[in-house]
Order: sequence, then structure tokens, then C-alpha cells
Amino acid sequence: MFTTRSCAKLCSKLGKSLGLRKVHVLPDFTQNSYNVRRGNYSVLQDSHIDFFQEIVGEERVIMDETDLNRYNIDWYNQVRGKSKIVIKPKTTEEVSQILSFCNDQRLAVCPQGGNTCVSGGSVPVFDEIVLSSDLMNKIISLDETSGVLVCQAGCILENLNNFVADKKLLLPLDLGSKGSCHIGGNVSTNAGGLRLLRYGSLHGSVLGLEIVKADGEVLDCLSTLKKDNTGYHLHHLFIGSEGTLGFVTKVAIHCPPQSKAISLAFLGAPSYENVLKTFKRAKNELGEILSAVEVIDTPSMDTLNDHLQITPPIGKHEFYLLLETKGSDEEHDQQKLNKFLESVLSENLISDGAIASEPGKYHAMWAIRERLPEAFLHDGYVYNYDLTIPLEYYFKLVADVRQHVGTEATRVFGFGHLGDGNIHLQVSTKEFNKAMKKRIDTFLFNKVKELNGSISAEHGMGFLKAGYLSSIKNESSFKLMKSLKALMDPNGILNPYKVLEN
Amino acid sequence: MFTTRSCAKLCSKLGKSLGLRKVHVLPDFTQNSYNVRRGNYSVLQDSHIDFFQEIVGEERVIMDETDLNRYNIDWYNQVRGKSKIVIKPKTTEEVSQILSFCNDQRLAVCPQGGNTCVSGGSVPVFDEIVLSSDLMNKIISLDETSGVLVCQAGCILENLNNFVADKKLLLPLDLGSKGSCHIGGNVSTNAGGLRLLRYGSLHGSVLGLEIVKADGEVLDCLSTLKKDNTGYHLHHLFIGSEGTLGFVTKVAIHCPPQSKAISLAFLGAPSYENVLKTFKRAKNELGEILSAVEVIDTPSMDTLNDHLQITPPIGKHEFYLLLETKGSDEEHDQQKLNKFLESVLSENLISDGAIASEPGKYHAMWAIRERLPEAFLHDGYVYNYDLTIPLEYYFKLVADVRQHVGTEATRVFGFGHLGDGNIHLQVSTKEFNKAMKKRIDTFLFNKVKELNGSISAEHGMGFLKAGYLSSIKNESSFKLMKSLKALMDPNGILNPYKVLEN
Repeated sequence: MFTTRSCAKLCSKLGKSLGLRKVHVLPDFTQNSYNVRRGNYSVLQDSHIDFFQEIVGEERVIMDETDLNRYNIDWYNQVRGKSKIVIKPKTTEEVSQILSFCNDQRLAVCPQGGNTCVSGGSVPVFDEIVLSSDLMNKIISLDETSGVLVCQAGCILENLNNFVADKKLLLPLDLGSKGSCHIGGNVSTNAGGLRLLRYGSLHGSVLGLEIVKADGEVLDCLSTLKKDNTGYHLHHLFIGSEGTLGFVTKVAIHCPPQSKAISLAFLGAPSYENVLKTFKRAKNELGEILSAVEVIDTPSMDTLNDHLQITPPIGKHEFYLLLETKGSDEEHDQQKLNKFLESVLSENLISDGAIASEPGKYHAMWAIRERLPEAFLHDGYVYNYDLTIPLEYYFKLVADVRQHVGTEATRVFGFGHLGDGNIHLQVSTKEFNKAMKKRIDTFLFNKVKELNGSISAEHGMGFLKAGYLSSIKNESSFKLMKSLKALMDPNGILNPYKVLEN
Repeated sequence: MFTTRSCAKLCSKLGKSLGLRKVHVLPDFTQNSYNVRRGNYSVLQDSHIDFFQEIVGEERVIMDETDLNRYNIDWYNQVRGKSKIVIKPKTTEEVSQILSFCNDQRLAVCPQGGNTCVSGGSVPVFDEIVLSSDLMNKIISLDETSGVLVCQAGCILENLNNFVADKKLLLPLDLGSKGSCHIGGNVSTNAGGLRLLRYGSLHGSVLGLEIVKADGEVLDCLSTLKKDNTGYHLHHLFIGSEGTLGFVTKVAIHCPPQSKAISLAFLGAPSYENVLKTFKRAKNELGEILSAVEVIDTPSMDTLNDHLQITPPIGKHEFYLLLETKGSDEEHDQQKLNKFLESVLSENLISDGAIASEPGKYHAMWAIRERLPEAFLHDGYVYNYDLTIPLEYYFKLVADVRQHVGTEATRVFGFGHLGDGNIHLQVSTKEFNKAMKKRIDTFLFNKVKELNGSISAEHGMGFLKAGYLSSIKNESSFKLMKSLKALMDPNGILNPYKVLEN
């Protein structure tokens, strides 16, 4: 599976080396922490290794135990696999040969992109072979007129964004993990992130994919057309299926034009009620130029201050609201934004605010939002939840969870994509506690069910939530998912223990 | 199958009664015009009819030969089935019982929405039972905050748009056939239309579906959440699969807010080169307020004038360009539009223009574009093509086809969604000629293949293009489509002879 952590700042350096991570204790092996049984897969033999080395060369087969750590452990230190081998193909053909062989040999495979998943979806659970897209990082083409970019799945999101920026385009998604996450992982998890409000989901932006099926067959659905209604729309099957139905090797994605004018307002509000009123007003008054709306609570900001010494640009407030505008006329946009800010300030909906338009300040202000998860990790262990619930329940739920977990938690905090109805609710403790996880899971997932919400808005089911799928889906949907898995991967070698089964 | 004709004005009255259509001669039966063999399905028996009448009541089972015509013949008079029965369920439960029975009895079924498909996808080919969504027209809910509308599949698009308009929302799609087409058909064909440039495809807007599978099982994927990454994204399977994988019964769709200011510019240009230059300039200068871009050539406009006595508001030009803007500030939008128009006029990119902002004039101006297909039909028979090709080839292809068909054609014309790279190329003749169709098909589809385009941008494969699917898709994609069909509909009862097979 390619997966990505959608909403956390993952500095490339941190992502690349465990040594640089703020990790005091390596997490326990998943097979010890969780009640999960190894599937009936083959165990890696020397003859298998010989085959892999023949396909990609010795230097692209990683087997050193220390080197393996960063492929076995997720960035959030939640899960830890025991894979003995990482293979790094460069081409679709190599992926095809490897998967065909693994399928014949009944060897389980864990597809991995930038390993930035926070649902435990991107690392092995047992000894699955890690099939990494690290070296599948070629940009294939960019059509400047249509804005369609075609690239290999292992391209890092930020690199792609920089590449298309030269042509005054941008990627339609932006994540805190952009410095590490791979576009193939973004697609496989249907990553959301900071630009969804403006540019919509990947189901709208991804025009085509090339996928290698579990049996090694290459499925070429790499259309670059904005409109193409010929036959079934196959590539959508692989958007959000977390590498369990196929290994994404190439992506065709529509890149919208950059806006000429961009502003980011960082606002402080005395209550969540005022945050909601301000948001409603922004939608109405800023209309088509409103491009992102994020909310952060005080405990989140405190964590950032405590561990990374980052403070908001406007002093302390109960809630912080980030409002971004993107438009084609700076003067018009400024007029709209100023008029809006004057009205919400004069009515005391917000208490204070700062605006950044100059790139340096703009990026620094966004970094406050993006570095939150990095700060949380310093508390110890973080139980992270990614929920879609009605907006009015956002921080009521945070308060409920705070009460529910009591003093056992270091902190309970919430932040997230207000514009999309998606909150990231986090609980930090000094160290992982299985009972605590179960307790929060049960409490929260029941609440989300009551509210007709989603227990995974954008992070996917991965390993950590896979066990809940059968209980949140109706029987017919779950059965069809199982049938699709059986059709696409009859031997179940692709990313086992994830999404559907645990 | 629910299908819709995406880009033609279909007045409700015309759609409802063959007698009011400008039809001189009823088309020949499809089984006579085309080389197609009836599948091994059961033939309708009295016992079947008894069963259907028991489920829905006698009055909702249509068997009168004259009444059946409008369900057996498509609006474009291209194809004609021989169904003996139309059933009109009102509920999902009724659809489920009917399909379960048909599946057991091996009775072939043709799902039908507003019967506005122009690819011959919405009418039977032989004697399939027509399962009509005519009476499944209930609006279930509208969440004003999130903009999510839930309704039955047989709701007419225009009715839905009027309903949400009261709450200052709009449907994210608009088609010439809005007065007749059903939302279930729109979803099943992934209809494009006039608003796609601004609001994207239905894969982005449709949040959930309820579907009845071929075996009668109800598949509830009716999520109303903007973000929900729990398990496989099943509902996308049914978007664009033209009723061959399931019968859509309910739709949850995101409705964006209405814009406060709307303008439509109707421009005349002396050459297609200038049209393209003007379009490029519009994208750059109008940016986020540009909401639709349509092009019409002179022969199209002549047809409108000849048959419906409609003339453009700006005299005669080689090409006409419709540019729509939608924004949140009338003054700002006017400034942007005026500045843009002054520059393209002063540089002689366009020769003349008219602007409509007042609703009456705005709708009248749009009607010129929307009524084109209605006018074409008066020429006799229309061979209609719906292509995605690179913009620069649009009218070169029209000219090539004109030369290719020579004097046998009454007219060859082109119009379409310039903003999405999608042209509707039409050839009219006095009456249908099988050899002529083959000749144009072969010529055009080869050209489209050379240009890496699509032979169906938004209309779907239906019956008329189904025979070409295996040659335009690569083997692995086609094989997977076949496998999905076999998984979802093992007896092949749903909309046979369409999409995959012919």
C-alpha cells in the first residue's frame, strides 16, 4: 500500500532517519501489541531474495536490520512490523515481475510510499515484503495547456508542486507531509489535506492511473483526459483502497492554475460559537476566493509552544482560525478580505487577527498549522483520530473525550479542516496503553456512529481501524468490498491485515 | 440503465410525447438496423406480468403499444426497441423485488430515466423489460449547511435545481435536457454539461448512492459526507457504468452555493484561432469567476435559424463564444469582465459581443446554446459524436469530416464545451444510412485514436458505441471491465448490449 499521513508536518529529514526523530522508545512489535494472527503466507527464503536481487540488483534490496527500521515503523510510532526485506523497483515492469513472483510464491507484500500514514497502513504487520516506491520518482510529462501532470507514483508531493510551479500551476492537494509523502500514496489513501475546500477530492482531480495488479498484470488506465466516459471508470477503484487492490505505479493528475493573489488570515476567537459564525460569514462574503479554512484549539497551540517554542502571531485565544483566499485580482481580494475582517472584528466575532500575503510570512503562518502533529509526538504517545462529524459537535466531542479519559491523558486536543467538516482529535499520553486505546476507540466510534459521521475522513482504515470496518459498514457494502478484494487479489497478498481484515 | 442526453435541449413536452416531436418517420427497429443477436433471455410470459402487477399495481405497468413507443425509441430517433412492458416502481423495495424476480427468471432489463440518452443507452434493443424511474421522484432531504441533497433517482434535474434554489444553492451540473433527464441517469452516465468547468465531474460531487444490484440486493452507499475514507469507495463503480452494474435508486449530491453575481457574454469571433486566444485570455484574466465556456460554429447557428428562427444577438460571425462568470461581488466581477472584453475587442480577437446579467436575458441567451440539438433534428437524421480531443483540432476535425462525407451530408457542424476539451460534432442527413454511419464512425474514431482522445467524452457508450469499446481499451482494462460485470451481474440481465457488448 502507498499511504500518506495527510495532516501532519513531516520534515523530510525526520522522515528519512529514525535517528533524527524524537523517538525515545521504539514501539513494540504490532504482533505483540495487537490480537492479530499471521496469514498463511510463505516465509522469505534465500531463493526469493536471489530472485528479487536479479530483478532490481543487490543495491536496491535492503536487508540490513537498522536500515529496515524506517520501513517497519510508522512515523507516529504506533505500529512496528518485522519485515526482513525492502525492494525498491524503478519501473512498472519491475513491479510487475516482483508482484507476479510474490503472487505465485504466496509471499505477502506491503506497498509503501513515503511511509507517512497515521493509520498504520504503510508498514508491515508481520514479515510482509516491503515494496517501496522510493525510486519511482520520475516526472513523465506536463501538458501546460491542460495542466495535466503524469508521473511515477514515488514522486514526492512537494517536488511535484515545485515542478509545476514553474509553469504557474499547482498540485490540487497540499498536506503537512508534503516533504515526504508520495503521490501514489496520496492517491491510494485518497488524501484530503489543506486544499480540498477549493479543489475537491482526488476522485475529481486524478484523471488516470497505471496500476500493477496482485498477479503482476499491468492495468493501464492512465487517461489524461478531463472527460472520458468510455466504459467503467476503473481508476476510481484504486483511489482510497490503500494498496489492497493494486500497486499504483503512475498517476495522471489535473493541476489547476496558480492564483495571482494569495492571503492568509490568522484569527483569534473567544469561543467556538464565534468560530462557526465567522466561518459562515466567510463562506458568504469571500465566496469563490475562499480557499482554506482551518481551526486550532488552545491545547493544540500550547503543545506547539511547549515543545517547539512556536507561538501564534496574535497572542493567546480560545480558538484560532486560518482563512486563506486565492484569487485573480489582488485589489479585489484585499477589498473583500478587509471588508469581511472589519465586520467580524467590529461585531467581536473575532478578537484579533494577522494577515500574511508575502510568501515568507504566508509559509511561516501555515507552518504553525502544519507542525502541530510533530509537536504532539513530544508528549509521548498520540492516539490520533480523523473524524467527519457535524461542525457543531467538533469541540463538544473534544470536551467529552477529555472527560472520558480523565487524568490518564496528558492532553486532549482538536484541530482540523473546518471547511470540510473534518476534525483531527488527538489524545496524548506518556506511553502507549492498549486498554486506553480500546477505551477511546469505543467511546469515540460510538459517538461518531450516533452522529452519522465517519471514523476516517481522510486517513484511511490502515491497520489500526481495519477491525472496525465490518461494524460500521452495512452488510451488503462490506460483502461487496470483500468480493472486490477476492476478484483483484485472490491470494490476498496485497497489504494484508489492512482496510478489510484485522 | 439510467441515461441522459447531456447536451441537448429537451423540452419536457417534446420528451413526453412522440406525437409532439418533429418526427416524420419512426426509426427502424434496432434489431433490423444493426447486426446484433438477442441474448439467451426468457421471453415475457403472462405469469411474469402477473407478478409485476402484484408488486406495483396494474396502473404502473404499461403495456399499450402506443404508450410504449416513447420508452422504446430514443429522443434522437436513432434506435428502437421492442419492449412489451414498462414497469414504474416508486420505492427501492419495489425495484429490489422486480430485479430479484427478473434475475431468477433470466429476464433482461433496461433501466430508464428520462430517456434522454443520445448513445442509444436508455432504450431496449430487443424486448428487455423497461424499468423506469419516472415515479421515483421524491426529494428526501436537503442539509442547508452542508449543501447535501438526498433524493430518489427519478427526480428531474431541473426540479431539483429549482428546489435547492430556494436555499440559495444550485445543482453542480446543468444540461440542455434538464427538463426531462433524471438525476439517476445523470449519475449513471457521469453526465458532464455546462457547469463542469466550475464544479467538476460527478465523481467529485456525488457523495453517496443507493443501488439495487442485479440480484435485487440493496447496496446502501448513501453517505452524505464530504470526506469519508472508510473502505472501498464503492459508489464510484456506478458513476458512468450506464446501468449495467446496478440500478441507482437514491443519490446524495453536494450542491454548491449560488453566486451573487452572474453574467453571460455572447461573443462573435472571426476565426477559431481567435476563439482559442480569447479563451486563454479569459482563463488568465477572469480566473476563479470564469464558470462556463462554450463554442458554436456558423453551420450550427444556421440550423438554429433555419428551423427554429433563432438568431444570435450579435449578427453573423464565423464562431460564437459563450463565456459565463459567477462571483460573489457584482462590482468586482463587472470590472474584471469589462477589462477583459475591452482588451479582446481592442485587439480584434473578437468582433462583437453582448452581455446578459438580468435573469430573463441570461436564460434566453443560454437557450441559444441549449436548443441546438433540437434544431438539428429538423434536418432529418443526425449522426452525433461527443469527443474529447485537443482544442486545436476541434474545427479542423469538423472540416475533415465535412470533406470526408462530401455532398451526402446535409450539414456537418460542431459546438461544445471548449472549457473542458469536449466537442459535439454532428452530421445531418435526410434519413439514416447504415453505410454512412459506419463511414463516419471509422473515419472519426481513427482520428480520435491518433489524437489520444475519447470517443465518448460525456455521453457514454450506450448501444451505439458499445461495439468499439474492446478496440479502444487495452486488453487488461477491458478484461477487468468484463470481470466486474460478471461479478455484479452474473446473468447479464442489466442493460444488455450496452457499454461492453454489442
